[in-house]
Amino acid sequence: MKVSILKTLKDQKGQYVSGEALSNRLGVSRTAIWKHIAALREEGHSIESSSRKGYKLLSSPDIILAEEIQAELATGVFGREMIYMDTVSSTNTVAKEKAAENYPEGTVVIANHQTAGKGRLGRKWESARGTGVWMSVILRPDITPAQAPLITIFAALAVARVLEQVTGVKPGVKWPNDIVYHKAKVCGILTEMSAEIEQVNYVVVGIGINVHHNIEDYPAAIRETATSLKAVTGQRFERKTIIKNVLEQFEEVYRSTQDAKKELIEEYKKYSLTLGSMVKVTSRDGMIEGEAVEITDEGELMVRTKDGTMHTIFSGEVSVRGLYGYV
Amino acid sequence: MKVSILKTLKDQKGQYVSGEALSNRLGVSRTAIWKHIAALREEGHSIESSSRKGYKLLSSPDIILAEEIQAELATGVFGREMIYMDTVSSTNTVAKEKAAENYPEGTVVIANHQTAGKGRLGRKWESARGTGVWMSVILRPDITPAQAPLITIFAALAVARVLEQVTGVKPGVKWPNDIVYHKAKVCGILTEMSAEIEQVNYVVVGIGINVHHNIEDYPAAIRETATSLKAVTGQRFERKTIIKNVLEQFEEVYRSTQDAKKELIEEYKKYSLTLGSMVKVTSRDGMIEGEAVEITDEGELMVRTKDGTMHTIFSGEVSVRGLYGYV
Repeated sequence: MKVSILKTLKDQKGQYVSGEALSNRLGVSRTAIWKHIAALREEGHSIESSSRKGYKLLSSPDIILAEEIQAELATGVFGREMIYMDTVSSTNTVAKEKAAENYPEGTVVIANHQTAGKGRLGRKWESARGTGVWMSVILRPDITPAQAPLITIFAALAVARVLEQVTGVKPGVKWPNDIVYHKAKVCGILTEMSAEIEQVNYVVVGIGINVHHNIEDYPAAIRETATSLKAVTGQRFERKTIIKNVLEQFEEVYRSTQDAKKELIEEYKKYSLTLGSMVKVTSRDGMIEGEAVEITDEGELMVRTKDGTMHTIFSGEVSVRGLYGYV
Repeated sequence: MKVSILKTLKDQKGQYVSGEALSNRLGVSRTAIWKHIAALREEGHSIESSSRKGYKLLSSPDIILAEEIQAELATGVFGREMIYMDTVSSTNTVAKEKAAENYPEGTVVIANHQTAGKGRLGRKWESARGTGVWMSVILRPDITPAQAPLITIFAALAVARVLEQVTGVKPGVKWPNDIVYHKAKVCGILTEMSAEIEQVNYVVVGIGINVHHNIEDYPAAIRETATSLKAVTGQRFERKTIIKNVLEQFEEVYRSTQDAKKELIEEYKKYSLTLGSMVKVTSRDGMIEGEAVEITDEGELMVRTKDGTMHTIFSGEVSVRGLYGYV
């Protein structure tokens, strides 16, 4: 009901809607309407009221309402089960627990605030309250652990598509899955899995997108390397729009056929900052430096070192030499 | 104290040990000794007592006492943390929970009974109360998911060594990790992991060894394909001896240096029933049939098909053509 009232007010944003009209339309008493309006105000919606004219929505905070997202979501399974929590340790941690409890493929865990947001390899991910999209998707693909990297590549492609479409500014992707504007990270993806040797039980793809941060909000240590949609564009974007679009794009890419996968890799390459650049790759086997010449259909990076040897990189830390040195 | 009394009686098995001697040796009252003897009897130890001569241990049930195993365990970390439970769903499930709670490398979960014992790929593993070794070891190796198969190969080698040494009968290993006598499985290994794309968080190696089963105890469906140490040798082996030895051998193999790994693969090959045989390999990519010609240093199986093509098999279902057709 609260969501229906909000939707009606939004559809006629800036105009008055009478309490009577709301009451008739939604089939509840005017007192009930009044109570829901009070609740919406508590959530931070600014609603003007006039005893003669009714209610007018002035502005809404960027809150995430699972029902509101789901109402508009054009997906098959992604987000059909959606768990929203104000505060979590990390959405990946919660999603892994839910996956172990047999929540279905496509289940999404979203939080407003992560107290222990995680990046790759045990690093921290800054995720202050209300500033970004912190979400994790549970997948149950029928693959071996060795095939998991492609999922993470495709998640990056989905986010890159959405950020380009929503902001109008094309982002770059640092192989395998950091999304950057200029030199700074706007989105990180942390893929974790539970697997047997020959079969994945489930994959959890954590996606963190910095939306509302001002650069000065970041700790000094990451002020050079992190950015947000607001910092890049000067504009304010609603998180629910980003969530909806990422889930739709990610599902489309994830469910693509084998043939389509080749085309998706081609599309991914167009966002790639890594391809064609000089790179340093640090892995368990040491460091190599060379030119990133190809991304394979399995999502691996191929690097040619000075002596002409070709290396196929399955995973590792890659720095790209750009205008500003290696980043 | 109970364990000390039991140890003293065992050291002089078949002979009387006076209550006074026990009392002096262990520094507790004769009443306390008497209470512990009563507790040992409740656990199924058969202890004769004579008011003049003292106590004599006649026989012990095959019970698993973590303290007793740990007292004799010659390992660095394997089994230093040992969780024994009479009944669990599956030791792998409990071990994964403990791993997520940051239990250290080497933690072992042992059960007397699994209500939902698991085999590979979601299959069931028969694990009736008191009949076998049902245990899982938590490992935290610094490897990528692609390197995990070698752990499972090495676990099979450790178990094969122990079964040969304890029973005097050499078992065969079906690649990658089924241990068989004649055509029937005596041990199965289920390796599960939690990982990021480029780093394993933890591995849980579940080891199930059939010890006390009579063939007629098995459900009809698996009577042809399962066996036990008792069925093979006609003898009774204590589970704690097997547990102690497997943990020691597994730790030694797991901690081996890169150079030693090549030798271990050579040793593994000597147990292999797969190598040199005609095999059918069923994997996601379909079925191939050919000769198993090599096991690589990474533990992969190399199969040459009729047309001369060499296939490197990372994982999959392998049936071996033996005297009795494919098993």
